[in-house]
Amino acid sequence: MAVYTDLGAAAMERLLGEYDVGALRSAKGIAEGVSNSNWLIETAQGRFILTMYERRIELGDLPYFLDLLDHLSAHDCPVPRTIHTKRGDSFVMVDGKAAALIEYLPGISPDRPSAEQAHNVGGALARMHLAGRDFEKTRPNTLGPQSWIDMLEECGVGGLSEIDPALPKMLTVARQTAERWPPDLPQSVIHSDLFPDNVLMLGERVSGMIDFYFACNDAMAYDLAVTHAAWSFDASDTAFDPAIGGALVEGYEAHRPLANAERKALPLLAQGACLRFIASRALDWIETPPGALVMRKDPMQFVRRLKFYAERGEKAFTPSPI
Amino acid sequence: MAVYTDLGAAAMERLLGEYDVGALRSAKGIAEGVSNSNWLIETAQGRFILTMYERRIELGDLPYFLDLLDHLSAHDCPVPRTIHTKRGDSFVMVDGKAAALIEYLPGISPDRPSAEQAHNVGGALARMHLAGRDFEKTRPNTLGPQSWIDMLEECGVGGLSEIDPALPKMLTVARQTAERWPPDLPQSVIHSDLFPDNVLMLGERVSGMIDFYFACNDAMAYDLAVTHAAWSFDASDTAFDPAIGGALVEGYEAHRPLANAERKALPLLAQGACLRFIASRALDWIETPPGALVMRKDPMQFVRRLKFYAERGEKAFTPSPI
Repeated sequence: MAVYTDLGAAAMERLLGEYDVGALRSAKGIAEGVSNSNWLIETAQGRFILTMYERRIELGDLPYFLDLLDHLSAHDCPVPRTIHTKRGDSFVMVDGKAAALIEYLPGISPDRPSAEQAHNVGGALARMHLAGRDFEKTRPNTLGPQSWIDMLEECGVGGLSEIDPALPKMLTVARQTAERWPPDLPQSVIHSDLFPDNVLMLGERVSGMIDFYFACNDAMAYDLAVTHAAWSFDASDTAFDPAIGGALVEGYEAHRPLANAERKALPLLAQGACLRFIASRALDWIETPPGALVMRKDPMQFVRRLKFYAERGEKAFTPSPI
Repeated sequence: MAVYTDLGAAAMERLLGEYDVGALRSAKGIAEGVSNSNWLIETAQGRFILTMYERRIELGDLPYFLDLLDHLSAHDCPVPRTIHTKRGDSFVMVDGKAAALIEYLPGISPDRPSAEQAHNVGGALARMHLAGRDFEKTRPNTLGPQSWIDMLEECGVGGLSEIDPALPKMLTVARQTAERWPPDLPQSVIHSDLFPDNVLMLGERVSGMIDFYFACNDAMAYDLAVTHAAWSFDASDTAFDPAIGGALVEGYEAHRPLANAERKALPLLAQGACLRFIASRALDWIETPPGALVMRKDPMQFVRRLKFYAERGEKAFTPSPI
């Protein structure tokens, strides 16, 4: 949530000169994205988001992320198009950093989603999965089961227990979950980080899915599980809202019914989703000094959600739970 | 440069419901302003800046700042209008914090201003001074000469010398400058913080003067001196650019010729302007822990500018210096 690079007016105008978007009229650094700098840009031709990639991103992955936006957008998914330069490039280099210009989409990220909103988010996710099937580029999921173990081991038992005494045993849970991980569920492009702040809505309609910088090829049902774990709990008290979770799955299945194997796997996939956020948050917690620019997120929030999924099993995903 | 308050979609919609601006379509936290949270808002009716006042602002001062925008805007100065609520209020209270909705103005803050841009900024400042003369509210300058002494004393000789060995003697300079401070120059509303990042430009034209939260009633020539000290030096090497400084004064005098007493006072007023920033930056430096959210600004930058004004005298302000 910061602008890391101070891009002056002259540099900004030079950069936009590479594009056929008309004269620059306004550029506001926006507090969006955790590891990139972002500006809301206005030119004579419209509005755009300019993203400068600061860290945590492999330059070699950029064509996957940026071409994916074009692919999904061309398949009527509500994702922003990548604006290409006059020369046809999807990104430019500025002082050794990559920068991309992306379509601006209106909409507000819901903080307390309604069931109808959750239904429509499920639908948009399913349509994204269907549209992603014929995307020609591929990218492995670098945050799969082995990575959770690696990240938690990097934290160390001492580091984990300093954050919370209940955290070290997540290493065992991660190893057990990785062993049981289903290897052959149907795959496509997945977003893998579709928290409410990565969704823009106008009323009940999904006007945008954004921040595809964790997108990869992996099991579609895992992406639904990630989204379920991200949307169905009240952020303050971690209470599960069955109406939201149920609507999300229903909305998804309205466009892409789950196979039996996928449905059976959902509880384990959701525990894996929780482990992915537990592990990355724990590592960020240890690597981020208190009082630094970036807000640290509590890994324990997802320890509680993991327990919920382990206890509730398949019932967590039924449209009308008891 | 941060968004301090996390204002969710529901709270944002509730807040905007107090205004007659149509349905909310987008809200992006923007990295602008040092001590307030700001959002760029889009509604069915247009774009606005929403500012939430976090600290450093006296609630009792808000009507001065917000009514001033309306007054100057009604007098054709390029400043954003304050949007009033359906009930006619210029600000609302949200969870104990004041928030105001302000007109969005296009434009880019110049990082390397041209002489023509400086000329037009001088002109806009003069027109603001002329328009401010019949503004009925008043506010004293709380950052006048006595405040520099107070702030530097609060830093203490130890604190000052820890920042830089050359800094403690600024306490003596501040006392001497305060003693010589001209008491009776013509007054009006002054901006008193018109750095380039508080000016929006479209090409050579001033499209907006923003961030009036240091505005007060004081000597107009002091405001010109502040602007001169803020615009006429290269930020990196503190080299004086006589073309910029000269154009600024010329542009000012095209709308409001300086009286002899004002012109004679400019070198001392500019040294006072430098002391104002030296003192507040030194205090911020001491009060801001390294690695905190806010970037600390180097007080020594203005020690060097102060020396320049002391040595150069009136010649610093002549349109065509030798």
